Amino acid sequence: MEGRAGKPIRCRAAVSRKPGEPLTIEEVMVDPPMPHEVRIRVICTSLCHSDITFWKMKDPPACFPRILGHEAIGIVESIGENVVEVSVGDTVIPTFMSDCGDCLDCKSKKSNLCSKLPFKVSPWMSRYESSRFKDLNGEVLYHFLFVSSFSEYTVVDVANVVKVDPLLPPNRACLLSCGVSTGVGAAWRTAGVEPGSTVAIFGLGSIGLAVAEGARICGATKIIGVDVNPEKFEIGKKFGVTDFIQAGNDEVKTPSQIINEMTDGGADYCFECVGMASLVHEAYASSRKGWGKTVVLGVDRPGSQLNISSHEVLHSGKSLMGSLFGGLKAKSDIPVLLKKYADKELQLDEFVTHEVSFEDINKAFDLLIRGECLRCVIWMKK
Amino acid sequence: MEGRAGKPIRCRAAVSRKPGEPLTIEEVMVDPPMPHEVRIRVICTSLCHSDITFWKMKDPPACFPRILGHEAIGIVESIGENVVEVSVGDTVIPTFMSDCGDCLDCKSKKSNLCSKLPFKVSPWMSRYESSRFKDLNGEVLYHFLFVSSFSEYTVVDVANVVKVDPLLPPNRACLLSCGVSTGVGAAWRTAGVEPGSTVAIFGLGSIGLAVAEGARICGATKIIGVDVNPEKFEIGKKFGVTDFIQAGNDEVKTPSQIINEMTDGGADYCFECVGMASLVHEAYASSRKGWGKTVVLGVDRPGSQLNISSHEVLHSGKSLMGSLFGGLKAKSDIPVLLKKYADKELQLDEFVTHEVSFEDINKAFDLLIRGECLRCVIWMKK
Repeated sequence: MEGRAGKPIRCRAAVSRKPGEPLTIEEVMVDPPMPHEVRIRVICTSLCHSDITFWKMKDPPACFPRILGHEAIGIVESIGENVVEVSVGDTVIPTFMSDCGDCLDCKSKKSNLCSKLPFKVSPWMSRYESSRFKDLNGEVLYHFLFVSSFSEYTVVDVANVVKVDPLLPPNRACLLSCGVSTGVGAAWRTAGVEPGSTVAIFGLGSIGLAVAEGARICGATKIIGVDVNPEKFEIGKKFGVTDFIQAGNDEVKTPSQIINEMTDGGADYCFECVGMASLVHEAYASSRKGWGKTVVLGVDRPGSQLNISSHEVLHSGKSLMGSLFGGLKAKSDIPVLLKKYADKELQLDEFVTHEVSFEDINKAFDLLIRGECLRCVIWMKK
Repeated sequence: MEGRAGKPIRCRAAVSRKPGEPLTIEEVMVDPPMPHEVRIRVICTSLCHSDITFWKMKDPPACFPRILGHEAIGIVESIGENVVEVSVGDTVIPTFMSDCGDCLDCKSKKSNLCSKLPFKVSPWMSRYESSRFKDLNGEVLYHFLFVSSFSEYTVVDVANVVKVDPLLPPNRACLLSCGVSTGVGAAWRTAGVEPGSTVAIFGLGSIGLAVAEGARICGATKIIGVDVNPEKFEIGKKFGVTDFIQAGNDEVKTPSQIINEMTDGGADYCFECVGMASLVHEAYASSRKGWGKTVVLGVDRPGSQLNISSHEVLHSGKSLMGSLFGGLKAKSDIPVLLKKYADKELQLDEFVTHEVSFEDINKAFDLLIRGECLRCVIWMKK
């Protein structure tokens, strides 16, 4: 596979051809990287709920045929012109959030929203409105979140790769490509959880559990998980969840009322990890008057509105903010998190509940849809 | 008037007997202070829009007959039991925001919302559900915002008074009782405006101008005022407003579009000072992606809802917060602002556009309603 720099590579990819239908493992052509791009041999990739959302979705911004996947780790196979940050053979994590290093946002400590190559759900590469994938009939295959890791080879902009230590276990490091980083970062960077503080997390999927893990690392002493599924408490305990509320189980009190009682007035930091506008309001109501912060991580359907009383905003002293990729700057923060993993401060092992070979990628979809796994790692080669 | 400690005082007050009808200057009886309360001889008081709102309002929380007024300065005439913080003869500023010093909120650096004597629009004193005022027929007169300064004497809880330097001009110091503190504090404490930053202010009434003054003190270099009245620009310039947008004047572009262009992507800090939920959305849209903060200061009608797209919250990296009394802790922050005034850093003189005697208090109402003044100081004695 080596020595092909500058030429298309023929390799296998899992192509999503129709909404909700099993991916097909096909031979595809992967173009060489354009300037500022790198071509990566994917080692392993993990499945995130956003992959499933865009696999099921029938209308734009969904598009087909597409190569999904955006949590991964790989080796740089070749580089395009003007790439100096990474070299052939480097181990890299691709990320859907760009970090160009040049724009006002990337230079500011306050933002992680690159304005040169902004986040969007595009069918193309982040810098050029074009694809690097074709099938063997010459039909263009669309990209996903600037990563498209369900392919043995993919092309990613240099602003969307982070060079990492090659000695790290790839089936752990890949988790920092999206989900775990988003949750841990939301607690660490966006909210700035402090030692001794109280935290409430709505939704204990992988993102919510990663928020718990981040809050645990930051020294929160009470971490309340809220979920409809009571089994989540046992899982949550592994990531620092100290208390649990089964949503819908109390016929009299809402979760926010229970949280207000448990924390003597509201949690310092509340996180909405489900993606329901109504839950954002419940999280806001659970947060401490005077200083409570509510962080929105969940992705609701387009057009959904948050409704919060303007008196409540004015009189409560609370704040509300969103968190995309946990407020992390990919290139500087992912290495910090990997160091915390190496130092056994950050748990990643517990997130990986399943591992499958590339041929079995559709099993990963089944497992995640059935709620039977947190993260399923998909190995490109056994 | 001295030597009456422990006994009721008969003095003059301006009583609001019916919604929207002129206040009547009457003789009233002011009870001695209960434990933890102080009785104050009011030197002067200034008129704030909230006084007018509750004077006009026909339904609860409005109530009649009531002694309005909540921006003032005075001298402690007598003290109740357990009052050690101030003594007879001290000069004090009463404040609608309590600062008990004991509760979790008062002890925290992060909150100014006293939980022991919380802010509410109550007809009573802050600690006891009772009034210290009666008319000469023995009818109870209601309190307003724990201050009721439209009286020669009033009773205020010790948690609602701030001891200040008696040498300060009272017709300047009294402004820090509410409006100017709210605006300056919103920029200084709630938003934390930084040197070199950009600011947009929706509504250039006294509160909006005080936000501009606060932003100017904090070193903001671009302070954009938005108002329907173009005359506000000249006034605004005195308080640091550098740019002006006449709302509704551009048939094509909204203020937020213009602000986005003027600031190359949005203002760092946006303030809604009018009290319209729809303007909160416009302020939010004017704030910088990645780090913009929107602060709500305006009081909308009860029940009004903020509608913000959950995608916008999630993807923008912006935050939204309210500010009551500018996030200031009355007892520690008002003296800091008065020091800034004494050091000629903070402008207060320019806010006082009119001064009247107590007998002419209804003229002050007329002036403020007609928009002809910023602050009108009402002197209790000539």
